[in-house]
Amino acid sequence: MQIAMVGLGRMGANMTRRLMKDGHDCVVYDRNPETMERLVTEGAIGVTSLRELAEMLEPPRAAWIMLPAGDATEAAVMELAGYFAAGDVIIDGGNGYFKDDVRRSKILAQRGIHYLDAGTSGGVWGRERGYCLMVGGDAVAVKYLEPVFVTLSPGGAGIPPSPNRTAGGSAEHGWLHCGPSGAGHFVKMVHNGIEYGLMQAYAEGFDILKNANADSLPADQRYEFDLANIAELWRRGSVVTSWLLDLSADALAQNPDLSNYGGFVQDSGEGRWAVQTAVEEAVPAEVLTAALYARFRSRREHTFSEKMLSAMRQGFGGHIEPKNK
Amino acid sequence: MQIAMVGLGRMGANMTRRLMKDGHDCVVYDRNPETMERLVTEGAIGVTSLRELAEMLEPPRAAWIMLPAGDATEAAVMELAGYFAAGDVIIDGGNGYFKDDVRRSKILAQRGIHYLDAGTSGGVWGRERGYCLMVGGDAVAVKYLEPVFVTLSPGGAGIPPSPNRTAGGSAEHGWLHCGPSGAGHFVKMVHNGIEYGLMQAYAEGFDILKNANADSLPADQRYEFDLANIAELWRRGSVVTSWLLDLSADALAQNPDLSNYGGFVQDSGEGRWAVQTAVEEAVPAEVLTAALYARFRSRREHTFSEKMLSAMRQGFGGHIEPKNK
Amino acid sequence: MQIAMVGLGRMGANMTRRLMKDGHDCVVYDRNPETMERLVTEGAIGVTSLRELAEMLEPPRAAWIMLPAGDATEAAVMELAGYFAAGDVIIDGGNGYFKDDVRRSKILAQRGIHYLDAGTSGGVWGRERGYCLMVGGDAVAVKYLEPVFVTLSPGGAGIPPSPNRTAGGSAEHGWLHCGPSGAGHFVKMVHNGIEYGLMQAYAEGFDILKNANADSLPADQRYEFDLANIAELWRRGSVVTSWLLDLSADALAQNPDLSNYGGFVQDSGEGRWAVQTAVEEAVPAEVLTAALYARFRSRREHTFSEKMLSAMRQGFGGHIEPKNK
Amino acid sequence: MQIAMVGLGRMGANMTRRLMKDGHDCVVYDRNPETMERLVTEGAIGVTSLRELAEMLEPPRAAWIMLPAGDATEAAVMELAGYFAAGDVIIDGGNGYFKDDVRRSKILAQRGIHYLDAGTSGGVWGRERGYCLMVGGDAVAVKYLEPVFVTLSPGGAGIPPSPNRTAGGSAEHGWLHCGPSGAGHFVKMVHNGIEYGLMQAYAEGFDILKNANADSLPADQRYEFDLANIAELWRRGSVVTSWLLDLSADALAQNPDLSNYGGFVQDSGEGRWAVQTAVEEAVPAEVLTAALYARFRSRREHTFSEKMLSAMRQGFGGHIEPKNK
Repeated sequence: MQIAMVGLGRMGANMTRRLMKDGHDCVVYDRNPETMERLVTEGAIGVTSLRELAEMLEPPRAAWIMLPAGDATEAAVMELAGYFAAGDVIIDGGNGYFKDDVRRSKILAQRGIHYLDAGTSGGVWGRERGYCLMVGGDAVAVKYLEPVFVTLSPGGAGIPPSPNRTAGGSAEHGWLHCGPSGAGHFVKMVHNGIEYGLMQAYAEGFDILKNANADSLPADQRYEFDLANIAELWRRGSVVTSWLLDLSADALAQNPDLSNYGGFVQDSGEGRWAVQTAVEEAVPAEVLTAALYARFRSRREHTFSEKMLSAMRQGFGGHIEPKNK
Repeated sequence: MQIAMVGLGRMGANMTRRLMKDGHDCVVYDRNPETMERLVTEGAIGVTSLRELAEMLEPPRAAWIMLPAGDATEAAVMELAGYFAAGDVIIDGGNGYFKDDVRRSKILAQRGIHYLDAGTSGGVWGRERGYCLMVGGDAVAVKYLEPVFVTLSPGGAGIPPSPNRTAGGSAEHGWLHCGPSGAGHFVKMVHNGIEYGLMQAYAEGFDILKNANADSLPADQRYEFDLANIAELWRRGSVVTSWLLDLSADALAQNPDLSNYGGFVQDSGEGRWAVQTAVEEAVPAEVLTAALYARFRSRREHTFSEKMLSAMRQGFGGHIEPKNK
Repeated sequence: MQIAMVGLGRMGANMTRRLMKDGHDCVVYDRNPETMERLVTEGAIGVTSLRELAEMLEPPRAAWIMLPAGDATEAAVMELAGYFAAGDVIIDGGNGYFKDDVRRSKILAQRGIHYLDAGTSGGVWGRERGYCLMVGGDAVAVKYLEPVFVTLSPGGAGIPPSPNRTAGGSAEHGWLHCGPSGAGHFVKMVHNGIEYGLMQAYAEGFDILKNANADSLPADQRYEFDLANIAELWRRGSVVTSWLLDLSADALAQNPDLSNYGGFVQDSGEGRWAVQTAVEEAVPAEVLTAALYARFRSRREHTFSEKMLSAMRQGFGGHIEPKNK
Repeated sequence: MQIAMVGLGRMGANMTRRLMKDGHDCVVYDRNPETMERLVTEGAIGVTSLRELAEMLEPPRAAWIMLPAGDATEAAVMELAGYFAAGDVIIDGGNGYFKDDVRRSKILAQRGIHYLDAGTSGGVWGRERGYCLMVGGDAVAVKYLEPVFVTLSPGGAGIPPSPNRTAGGSAEHGWLHCGPSGAGHFVKMVHNGIEYGLMQAYAEGFDILKNANADSLPADQRYEFDLANIAELWRRGSVVTSWLLDLSADALAQNPDLSNYGGFVQDSGEGRWAVQTAVEEAVPAEVLTAALYARFRSRREHTFSEKMLSAMRQGFGGHIEPKNK
């Protein structure tokens, strides 16, 4: 089917390629002409504005926005909505906040325009492996976009349905209509929250292994572990096998002491929203939160909090904390 | 090769079966005669005491202890050591504490007896999938036991070595000599610590999804998610794919609201030792610890801590917490 | 000076009494006539509507709203603003969210009405001890209300200024103009976040003392501690002396096993906003968050999260968690 | 009474002074002759060895060990026990581990020597304010040492007993016989665990205030808070008043941005043992643990854990974390 892709970053560009390879007609737009040019070479139709994009599409139009969450997406959705008409569909495939989806979908619904939110997982591997798609919005629009979801998603991916499952449904093909507006981004938000927790669990475990040779430990209880071998080992038959472990094993094979990394770790909106949503729901989410805070802390040289501790310790105990370690 | 198995619980019995199927000669002992009888029927040689077991084995003897960690293992190792001689090997395959291994291996080394610690992952699936083995102790004994490790371990398990890895080594076959005495159980301890963290990350994520329909939330931001479908979805192309997710998806397919479970969650020594080791190493292990504490809390109706909070709230604010919700 | 009090719950009523005792003229309103009647008996002027209240006050009017945060406060502020004129002042003394203050103050400023937010700490003790006041808003209005702040606040409270402090300023008298709109509630929010953390620290410590007699511990390392005596002890000369400890000691003196409390612990908006604000600022706030989550958990019989853990444990290990402990 | 003090660091020296001021006869020993000389000038009797110390004391002898926990204390206790006889008393007033007390007390009991453990809080303020004493061991020895405890402890400290308390008992004077051997250090351990939690709660709160002006926040929701004033404010009438807040207010008055501190925060054995004990008791102690981990993290430039996160992020998302921020 015909579909527009707005935003041709790593994700948007590769998704377009996956769509075209499966026979879809793609109209593409990016503020950066070079990026767009490359995709045009590969078969896409390039446009120079959202207005032109709307004109190029045949109704009912479908445009997939793949831009940074927040202002960029908001602007693109709202401008495009201005050119679209009843029956058209706008999909936000970025990492948006589900509350924005609820708000936008209501605004667009007043003019009969459908708005879908599609949480998209897959990263740099998605072009080849497919993108796990978590979709929210009304069923009519989801049905209309089904060919696109089918192409983008991984399909069965060689993974048989769970034994106890009554077979069937698109989840087995790597995409799912999760519920009304916002549901897709909600599920993606939780997905990323879990992702943070999983990553931190592995990271702490390897940190304990790495520090098993600390001088402060009794000499006969110190170990020099080969982390790359241990990660490789756990990939077979252990309880902790996962794709993140596969990636960890590969990273450790390449750079055993991870000296290629500084240790400043970014976080995105989803991890934060997941925690804030847990708080709103009154769900204790210790692990997801601790994982987020570890990233916050990683980006600071020192916290003010730590200086407060030193100040108090000096106050009651006369302890002088070294200003430089 | 000839090997004795002491302790024929779920793990010990199935490991014996896997060993016999691959042609090893197994001498088995369990305090429960029925359990032993069954394995004798399947081809093992049963003995009625550790003394008889020692007599039945040809030197250099090899005995694998598969008993609950702590007193049971300690007693069996020490009694067996009394009957064993220089060059013999005792392997503790249970969930032991690495500091006990260090201590025991020194005692046994005085008489020339080798002591190996073998962290064994695989659970109920191990008989078929193989057991991921993390081995500690001296290299001579590890070499002697290699045929046993090869049989018990999963082998390649269809998983190609990590791309950046210089191919080779037993880790690619699911077993590894991790270091001197205690190293095997140390790695298994960290493995289980990670396991707790991973499980808690998924659990919290699904809890946030489950509670997305709470009455306290704005009506247009409530969702009724189909958890089984979402788990099934994430198995394909998402960042959070793992064996634990596969198990979660299957459990949710069978019992979508998990009403089969009460919510009291056990923990074993390893999760606790992992935290205590992190503290000894001064490694911040927030996630592994939070995962452990969630289990502690799950087994209490209420903590004294919570009552203290209510008492203070009444003290400063006159807040009366309901004795029954 | 003349001031109106809207909302005569425990806080509003006692604040009115403290104000009248110091010679202020109080006009009071509450939807519950009985509550109002009592204060009228004590010297206040009662009104039957916000409109009447506005008419009763002499310009520039000042009205202190002491209602539950959220809808009730929003409605009262907005209705009152309809009757007020340029130069009048509305103070929200409840536990409001600072973002609501920012929004409201802008709306009211369009008509020249001042809006102050006043975080108010003191609980049931405030009438006697005074209320610690954290005020946000424009300086002119703060200046106008100063007599009220002086009366409500504790004054020096017998506490000499910090030795290193350049003496002076209202903070030494228990009230402070913290900054522009929202600043008062922001500081109160952080205050309550800290309060949660302090309470949880004590609570966990006493829980460890309480459980020092657990059967699972070695017999010669078990203790039956007298918690009331220990709390009383710590009140003198220890590092952990505080008002919350005083309250804890008294509660334990009265009810040593705290059997009067069920353990379900409420939380208010401020604890949640503190965590959400930490997330917005990317400040790691582990302790404040853990304290909040402990309350969330206390109000559930079991979490879905815990059932997920049991389900996974059964999946990989065949562990059957008892449905009832 | 006559008492020996072994170890004349900040704590031991000031405790000796407090004892002498109240009329006790002090025999002192320290490996550093200068330290000892000063106290001799002030009236103490100096000795040059533990043997001489034992000879100088009249039976039943009493010696208070005030040395770093661990090897130094162990050596001093054991050497002194060699010179002591049945009926004599050794008190460990340092920050020892309660399990060491249990062990030592049994060894010494075989020869009739009493061993007391005395957790001692008070820091640099103790000489003047008195030391809060938490004592473990047998009642006979505690009774014998009572005059010493009475002198060292703060006494009533101007703090009336809790209202609901049946008046009486030494807790009201700042010292307490907490239970059998180890009980004193156990209570001190929990005290310090709580101390860590309280400190971290304040620290995080002030960190949130400090970062309320972050550029990433909406311009109309940014605040420049005067932390020194806020701390001073909270000392009067708020729920979070405490001695640690007093110290914080003073530190902030002196050095508002705490630039005097680097942020590397030490921890002592007690905070770690408190967490490990919580784990042994299966008591969830999230806050005490998070407070400890924050200190661990503060002493690292970056954790290996953080590098693992970056490595995984690059693996699945192609995210390049800057090696230098």
